[in-house]
Amino acid sequence: MTIAVIYGGNRPNGNTESLTKLATQGLVVEEIYLKDYLIEPIIDKRHAEEGFPEINDDYDSIIDRILLHDILIFSTPIYWYSMTGTMKNFIDRWSQTLKDAKYPDFKNQMSQKRAYVVAVGGDKPYMKGLPLIQQFQHIFDFVGTTFDGYIIGEGNKPGEIVQDMNALFAAEQLRKKLQNASS
Amino acid sequence: MTIAVIYGGNRPNGNTESLTKLATQGLVVEEIYLKDYLIEPIIDKRHAEEGFPEINDDYDSIIDRILLHDILIFSTPIYWYSMTGTMKNFIDRWSQTLKDAKYPDFKNQMSQKRAYVVAVGGDKPYMKGLPLIQQFQHIFDFVGTTFDGYIIGEGNKPGEIVQDMNALFAAEQLRKKLQNASS
Amino acid sequence: MTIAVIYGGNRPNGNTESLTKLATQGLVVEEIYLKDYLIEPIIDKRHAEEGFPEINDDYDSIIDRILLHDILIFSTPIYWYSMTGTMKNFIDRWSQTLKDAKYPDFKNQMSQKRAYVVAVGGDKPYMKGLPLIQQFQHIFDFVGTTFDGYIIGEGNKPGEIVQDMNALFAAEQLRKKLQNASS
Amino acid sequence: MTIAVIYGGNRPNGNTESLTKLATQGLVVEEIYLKDYLIEPIIDKRHAEEGFPEINDDYDSIIDRILLHDILIFSTPIYWYSMTGTMKNFIDRWSQTLKDAKYPDFKNQMSQKRAYVVAVGGDKPYMKGLPLIQQFQHIFDFVGTTFDGYIIGEGNKPGEIVQDMNALFAAEQLRKKLQNASS
Repeated sequence: MTIAVIYGGNRPNGNTESLTKLATQGLVVEEIYLKDYLIEPIIDKRHAEEGFPEINDDYDSIIDRILLHDILIFSTPIYWYSMTGTMKNFIDRWSQTLKDAKYPDFKNQMSQKRAYVVAVGGDKPYMKGLPLIQQFQHIFDFVGTTFDGYIIGEGNKPGEIVQDMNALFAAEQLRKKLQNASS
Repeated sequence: MTIAVIYGGNRPNGNTESLTKLATQGLVVEEIYLKDYLIEPIIDKRHAEEGFPEINDDYDSIIDRILLHDILIFSTPIYWYSMTGTMKNFIDRWSQTLKDAKYPDFKNQMSQKRAYVVAVGGDKPYMKGLPLIQQFQHIFDFVGTTFDGYIIGEGNKPGEIVQDMNALFAAEQLRKKLQNASS
Repeated sequence: MTIAVIYGGNRPNGNTESLTKLATQGLVVEEIYLKDYLIEPIIDKRHAEEGFPEINDDYDSIIDRILLHDILIFSTPIYWYSMTGTMKNFIDRWSQTLKDAKYPDFKNQMSQKRAYVVAVGGDKPYMKGLPLIQQFQHIFDFVGTTFDGYIIGEGNKPGEIVQDMNALFAAEQLRKKLQNASS
Repeated sequence: MTIAVIYGGNRPNGNTESLTKLATQGLVVEEIYLKDYLIEPIIDKRHAEEGFPEINDDYDSIIDRILLHDILIFSTPIYWYSMTGTMKNFIDRWSQTLKDAKYPDFKNQMSQKRAYVVAVGGDKPYMKGLPLIQQFQHIFDFVGTTFDGYIIGEGNKPGEIVQDMNALFAAEQLRKKLQNASS
C-alpha cells in the first residue's frame, strides 16, 4: 500500500501542511502540491456532442500520479468553510476524466482506494468545517473511494496548530494506522 | 435597490443559468459571468509581514461592480456537491480584500447587502446540496450579509431544469420578491 | 400503493399538520397521530443477553399499521431544530423491532417503501432544518427506505404556513405525485 | 464554576456514559440521568390563549438543578443519528420554560453557561453524527449558551469505546479543561 498526499493550500508551511506532515512523518509518501501546477477550471462539456476538449495543463499528470497509490490524503486549509478553490478546481476536473477515453477505468480505480481528509481552519472549524466533511463524503461515495477518516484542526496564524492537542493526537493515530497499512 | 448576479458556471445556458434567468426576468440586473474573467487563486498572505501582493487580474474590477449593488445572487451549478472552483476562487480572494487598503470598508459594505443562492445539481441536490447551502450561510455570516433565501434545482442535461416544478415556482416567487425590492 | 401519514406534532391543527393535509387532500391515507398513543422510550437492550423486554404500550400496533402501506409520510413540526421527541421516541424503538422475533422481516419490508418528510419550523427552517433532513436520510438509508422528497415550511403561529407560497406549491406537487402513485 | 452532566442514554454503563465519566473523572459534577425521571413530551401551547398547563412531572426539578451550574455536559448516545428521544423530550420542554412565569430569567441564565456534548454512536458517527452536532449548535445559539466543544466517539457493544483512541484522548483533554475551569 502506497500513499499520495494532495495539498490544496497556497501558503508554504501552513498549519494544514504541518498537521499533515505529522500524520505522514517517517512514511514514504508522494507529495503533490496543487499550487505548483497549472490546473484549468473545468469547461463543462459533459453533455456537449463534441465532448470535452483536450486541455494542455498539468491536470492529467497529477491524475496519473495519484492513480498509482492506494491511499490518498486530501490536505486542505479551510478557506471560507470549504476546500480551497485550487483543490476544488482539481476535483471539478474529475468530471472530465470520468468521460476521458484515456482513463476508461478511472472510477473503478478510485473505488479501490482509501481516502483521508486533513483540514485546518481558524473560525470554529469543529463546527463550521462539518459541511466540508460531508461534501468529501459525497465526493468519495460518487467514485466509490472509502472515506476512512478525517482530522479537523484549529489554527489561524502559522504555527498555531501545535496548540490543538486533539488534532495532534489524531495525526499521530493516523500515522500509526498509515504505517501499518503501508508496511 | 439594485441587483447583481454572479454566475459561477462554466457552461453557457446551463440549467443554473436558466433558473436564475427566470428569477430575474424583466428586472434590471448586472450580470457577471466569472468564467469570462481571470481570477487567480488566492496566495494566502494573511499573516505574512509583507502582506498580500498586488495581483494583476480581473478580481478587483468584479468586486468594484458587486459593491455597487444591494442584492447579490450567487448562481452556481453544483459541481461535486459544492460551488464551482471558479466561484470558490472568487470567494477565496475576499480574504485579501478584507486586508486590502483599497477596500477599507469591504466588510461593512457587504454587511448591508442581501444575498440569494441559486444552485442546480444532478445528483440528488435536495439532499446532497445541503452542505453547500450551510457553507454559504457561514460565508454570509462572516461578512454580515443577510442570507435571504436559496433555490435548489435538479437537472443534469441542459434544459432538464424545466421539469423541476418546485424550483421553477420558487424562481417565480423570488422574481416577485426582487421586483418589489427593486422597484 | 397506499399511504400512511405519521404525525409527530403535539398541537392540533398545527402548521405542519395543515401543510401535510394539503399534500394528502382527496387521497385515501391512514393517519397516525403519535401523540394519541403511549410509546415508551427505548430501553437499549441490543447487546443484553436477555434481549429486549416485551413493552406493553401502543408501539407495536403502530408498526403493524405502517407496515401495511407502501408510502410513509413523516410529518413533524421542527422543535429545537429536530423532529419532536414524540416522533424520536417512536423511531428509537425501531432498534427493538429490528431484533424482535415477531418482526423478522422488518428491515426488508421497510426497504420496499418510499418515504416523504414534511417539516415546518419558525426559526429559519430552510437553513436550520437541514440537519434534520440529513438525519432522515441516514435513517432511511439504514432501513433501505427510499427517501423520495421533503417539504420544509416556515411558520410559527397557527395558520402562518399559508404565507409560505413555496411550501404550499411543493405540497400541491407532492399531492399530484401521490395521487398518481396511489391510483 | 460548577458542572452538571445531563445523561440521555437508556442503558446503564453504556459507551457514552463511560466516555463522559472519563471526561469528568475526579471532578465534582452533578449527574442527572434523564431516564430516571418522568418527563412528559411538550404539549405545544406556545400560541394558545390559556398558555401552557402545569405539568406534574420531574421536568422542573431538573431545570432547577441545571440552572445552578455554569457548565453543562449533554451526554447522549447517538440513536438513529440524533440525540435520544428521552433527551429530546427534555429539550423540547424548554419552549415551555421560556414562557413560564416561574422562570422569567431562563434564557438569560442559559446564556451565561458553557456547554459540551459527548455523543457515541455505532454507525460511522464521525460522519453521520455531524447533523446532531449542528443541531446542538442551533439549540445553544437560540438560548445563547456557548457551545465550547464536543466529543464524538465510536462504539456499539458496551465497552467498545475504549478502542476509540481519539475519543479517549479528547475526553482527557476535556477533563483537564474542566478541571482548570472548576478549580
